[in-house]
Amino acid sequence: MSTTVGQLGERSLLRRLRERIPKGPGVAVGIGDDAAVVETASQVVVTTDTLVEGIHFRRDWGPPALLGRKAVSVNLSDVAAMGGAGRYATVTLCLPADLAVSFVDELYDGLLQRAAETGVSVVGGNLSATPGPLTLEVTLIGHAPRPLLRSGAHPGDRVLVTGDLGAAAAALHFFETGLRLSAEGRLIAEGRWPQGVREAIERCLSAQLDPDPPLGFGRALGEVEPGLVHAAMDLSDGLSGDLLALCEASEVAAWLDASAIPVDPAAARLEKEGGDNGFSLALHGGEDYQLLLAVPPAQVPALREQAGAWEVRLTDVGEFTPGPPGVSVKFGEALRRLKPRSHDHFALPQRERRQDPTREA
Amino acid sequence: MSTTVGQLGERSLLRRLRERIPKGPGVAVGIGDDAAVVETASQVVVTTDTLVEGIHFRRDWGPPALLGRKAVSVNLSDVAAMGGAGRYATVTLCLPADLAVSFVDELYDGLLQRAAETGVSVVGGNLSATPGPLTLEVTLIGHAPRPLLRSGAHPGDRVLVTGDLGAAAAALHFFETGLRLSAEGRLIAEGRWPQGVREAIERCLSAQLDPDPPLGFGRALGEVEPGLVHAAMDLSDGLSGDLLALCEASEVAAWLDASAIPVDPAAARLEKEGGDNGFSLALHGGEDYQLLLAVPPAQVPALREQAGAWEVRLTDVGEFTPGPPGVSVKFGEALRRLKPRSHDHFALPQRERRQDPTREA
Repeated sequence: MSTTVGQLGERSLLRRLRERIPKGPGVAVGIGDDAAVVETASQVVVTTDTLVEGIHFRRDWGPPALLGRKAVSVNLSDVAAMGGAGRYATVTLCLPADLAVSFVDELYDGLLQRAAETGVSVVGGNLSATPGPLTLEVTLIGHAPRPLLRSGAHPGDRVLVTGDLGAAAAALHFFETGLRLSAEGRLIAEGRWPQGVREAIERCLSAQLDPDPPLGFGRALGEVEPGLVHAAMDLSDGLSGDLLALCEASEVAAWLDASAIPVDPAAARLEKEGGDNGFSLALHGGEDYQLLLAVPPAQVPALREQAGAWEVRLTDVGEFTPGPPGVSVKFGEALRRLKPRSHDHFALPQRERRQDPTREA
Repeated sequence: MSTTVGQLGERSLLRRLRERIPKGPGVAVGIGDDAAVVETASQVVVTTDTLVEGIHFRRDWGPPALLGRKAVSVNLSDVAAMGGAGRYATVTLCLPADLAVSFVDELYDGLLQRAAETGVSVVGGNLSATPGPLTLEVTLIGHAPRPLLRSGAHPGDRVLVTGDLGAAAAALHFFETGLRLSAEGRLIAEGRWPQGVREAIERCLSAQLDPDPPLGFGRALGEVEPGLVHAAMDLSDGLSGDLLALCEASEVAAWLDASAIPVDPAAARLEKEGGDNGFSLALHGGEDYQLLLAVPPAQVPALREQAGAWEVRLTDVGEFTPGPPGVSVKFGEALRRLKPRSHDHFALPQRERRQDPTREA
């Protein structure tokens, strides 16, 4: 039997974790005092995100290290969408007493590894027991030289997205059928799978468990000339819902070209394997952690150049238009208005948000 | 039946809470974008604290508004112990789907009221469903002109504490016997209680549910001449454990004078009513949210003057001494070394930490 956090105790576990946390640049007082003291610019960006077991993840989906990485990455995605970079993080873990200490160690391995990769210093946090699910919360403090907001989209701006969409949402389907990811990033599944299918599934599971937002490109957008990008947000709740949120913040409408949406090839392939509808996953799925941008048409070529320099794929998927906030999808000549629909962990089981590609209002 | 958060849905609940949050001074971008953007000094203090139902509180102990107040106050206490003031807060709520929306509204009433009282702006946060207990997490960003650390105590410094100790811990005893606090701050209990006892119990329950750390005095300590206070921390886990932590950070030992420890009169009174040992509660109880200070003897009079200006009671309870980190208690001529003992939510049920006044090593 491995030691549990209850057996080790809060104080010992704290000490164990503290000893592993390096004191990064700009950290005047790190973990171990009443509060951390850190050097900042005169303006900081702050964001916080939470992963709750049973809501956002299941412990058996993949290795604990990826859970630690994801807790950092989802916050980095928010800061990148502001045109900024993360610098300092506080980490709160609410731990069931019967959790193995080795699980916490591995989770922290991933968390610290991801922080080191991205120039983030862990400066404080909190450990608490919980009678409920394992919960991770990271608050990230960073810097954005010129913050990109959701509220700047103009009618006529193009709707652009980075990367491919739908892979992370497709993974939920695979988890439900019992597939898992090993610590080595390999598919754990019974039976023999064709190599191409295996790789597609591994890609989806990795997208869900270890998201890789375009951090460098996001940060660069905060440094380019003003006017290149009018508005930005990260895609965390699904393109349809997030675009609606951006429309609401900017008081504009938008349409998407169904044929232009960059469905992740792995997610697209699933359809043939009897999985979900790839297009629906890309439109509504969520957890893509890519960027959604409003860009004046004349600036699109310059932005493509920027994206190219960061090896980020940029796809023009539609247009912002005048009118009350709302999102439509063009299928050839037909324009269908999407009913607002979004990730709602309170109201809907996770599966329900991935059925029809469009629902007419 | 009142509406539950599951019925209302995440998006509506977010909108409902957002609309109530004022945009404070220094907030360039508040709630509603990917991240908040706030103006800061070139050095900030950061702290985070969590309240988990079933571990740190029970929902039926008192009104929801006090829970919201406490989530802010416990973080303010940490910042005050650094000699600073809080300025911006992010708030994360993990909510069971069957929680009444009115509960969240009242919790937020208290939280925003406490923030307004103390000059804190809520700038962001997160809502999540949880299959487990109600969990509140606040991260506070503030400013400390000259941070007071735990690591500065010298042998020969006096051990000083603010306020009275033990009342918050005494409340746990009363909660176990079924007593509760009303929204008006009145005792809810069957039968007739002598007025003095009723008031003592109300004082204890309030200390537990609505702690009132010496924020102004703490902030002032960060502005006084260097050398007046060598080290500071807040008393959250109990005097014995916290003093040991301060000794460890400063690499000194300390003794406490048993007869000097300021046992809260209400907690002291309980002994006569068959409750807990008041001295034990003051020594080990926890959640006092007072300040523990290391002060050179020559500076004590000047510090008393400061404390007087803030109407804060300051008590000299012992001395720091050379030697390996450890805490002893003097009972008259007898010196007993305390075994390290502290609040451990993982390892011990809450009651266990309040038995003997001292345990010899």
